[in-house]
Amino acid sequence: MSNKPTLHTSISPALLNLYDISNSVVVIIDVFRATSTIASALYNGARCVIPVDSVPKAIEISRNIGGIAAGERDGMIAEGLSHGNSPLEYPREFIENKTLVLTTTNGTRLLQMALDKNADTIISGSFPNLDAVCEYLVKAGKNVIMGCAGWKDRFNLEDTLFAGAVIHEVKKHFTVHCDSSLMAETLYDKYKNKLIDFAPKLTHYHRLVERFGLIEDIRYCLTPNLANVLPLYADGKLVAQ
Amino acid sequence: MSNKPTLHTSISPALLNLYDISNSVVVIIDVFRATSTIASALYNGARCVIPVDSVPKAIEISRNIGGIAAGERDGMIAEGLSHGNSPLEYPREFIENKTLVLTTTNGTRLLQMALDKNADTIISGSFPNLDAVCEYLVKAGKNVIMGCAGWKDRFNLEDTLFAGAVIHEVKKHFTVHCDSSLMAETLYDKYKNKLIDFAPKLTHYHRLVERFGLIEDIRYCLTPNLANVLPLYADGKLVAQ
Repeated sequence: MSNKPTLHTSISPALLNLYDISNSVVVIIDVFRATSTIASALYNGARCVIPVDSVPKAIEISRNIGGIAAGERDGMIAEGLSHGNSPLEYPREFIENKTLVLTTTNGTRLLQMALDKNADTIISGSFPNLDAVCEYLVKAGKNVIMGCAGWKDRFNLEDTLFAGAVIHEVKKHFTVHCDSSLMAETLYDKYKNKLIDFAPKLTHYHRLVERFGLIEDIRYCLTPNLANVLPLYADGKLVAQ
Repeated sequence: MSNKPTLHTSISPALLNLYDISNSVVVIIDVFRATSTIASALYNGARCVIPVDSVPKAIEISRNIGGIAAGERDGMIAEGLSHGNSPLEYPREFIENKTLVLTTTNGTRLLQMALDKNADTIISGSFPNLDAVCEYLVKAGKNVIMGCAGWKDRFNLEDTLFAGAVIHEVKKHFTVHCDSSLMAETLYDKYKNKLIDFAPKLTHYHRLVERFGLIEDIRYCLTPNLANVLPLYADGKLVAQ
C-alpha cells in the first residue's frame, strides 16, 4: 500500500458524516459564492472573516467589534443587512483592515459541520484561490476531504468542478481512490478551458444570473487565482496565511 | 413553464429525502449487481423477485414459499445462503418458474426507503434492461427519480452512468433541470462506447474483480439490453411487466 495521504471528495454536506475528518484537512467549497467572497475579502486586506450561522448573530458580532455584517439567503442580500455575498462587493478600498462577519446559505453551515466533527484543519477553497489551496494541501501532507457545500444538501456541479481542479493539480501527492473524486476530476478535465461557457447549464447559474443578474460574479467565481490567498480557520475566524 | 414531467437524479440513498417521491416513479439502480441480477432472473423466467432486508428473512420466506434464497453482503454470497447476487447464477434452466428471495447491501435498502416514503411507483433499472426502463418511463409520463443505490451511502459512478444512459434516451420527454442529472448524462456521454474499458477505474470494480474475480459479472452488468424486461414492484414483489 502507498503511504501517501488520502484524498476524498464529499459531494454534499449530507454525505460528510461518511468520512473520518478528525485526521483530515477539510476544504470548504462554496464556489457560488461564499468561499469566493472569503478569498476576495482576505486578498483585498480584510483582517479576517468571521463565518456565522444567522443574520442576528452577524449583526451583533459586527456591532461589538466594529466589523461589516454581510450575508445572503437564497441568493439575495439577507434581510436586515446592507452587504451581501458577492466577491465584487469587497475591493481593497472598502474592506482593507476591516473584519467581515459573513452568513450564507450553504458554506457557513458546512463549515460548522466540519467544526462539530472535529476536523483536524479547516481551510476554504474556490477558483480565485485555487493555487493557494493546492500548495497548502501538498505542503501539509495530511489526508484531505474536499467538502462541497452544494445547495441545501443537493449536489451542484460548480463545487465539484473546483474539487476536480484541485485533484487535477495535487493527485500525484495523494492516494485518490474514490468515485466522487474520479467524477470531479473527469468533469473538470472536460470543462477546464471553458468553465464560463459551461456555466449557463448549471442550476445555480439560473438562480444567480436570471433572477439577480450576477453575471460578473459568475465570471469572477470561475476564474482561477484572482485572489490567491489561503483562508485558514482558527478560533472562530478565517485568516489569510 | 413546460408541462412535461420532471426528472431528477438522487446520487446517494442519503439524498433521497431531498425529493418528493410520492408523485414519482422511482427507478432503483444498483448496477453492481442487484438490479442487474433482478433483470436477469426475471428475463430468464423467474416468477418474481422478493427483495428482503436480511438473510434470516430471505431464508424464512424462501422456505415458506419454496423459493430460492439468495444474497450478498460486502460483495460475497451472504453467510447462510448458497446463492449470491450474480446475474450469471440465474440462467433459464435454473430460475424459470421459481421465486428468487434476494437480500443485498445497497439496492434492497434503497427500495425499502422508496417504499417508506410512499413512492408512486417503483421499478428497477440496470444496463441489461435499459431500453425497457426508458420505454416505461416515457409511456408512464409521470415525474421520475433516478435512485442510485451507491455503496453504503457513498456515491458510485456505475449507478450514475446508468442514470445518465436513461437521461440520454428520454430527456426530450422530461424537464431535466438538476446538476446531478447533467453530471450523469455528461459522464455517460463521455464513456458510453467504452463502459467496460472504463470499469477498472471504479472503486467497486476493485471490490468485485480484484477480490472476487467477477470480471464476467462486470461485463454482463455493463452491457445494455441483455435482459430487456421491466421489473415493477407491487405487493412485496418485483414482477416482469
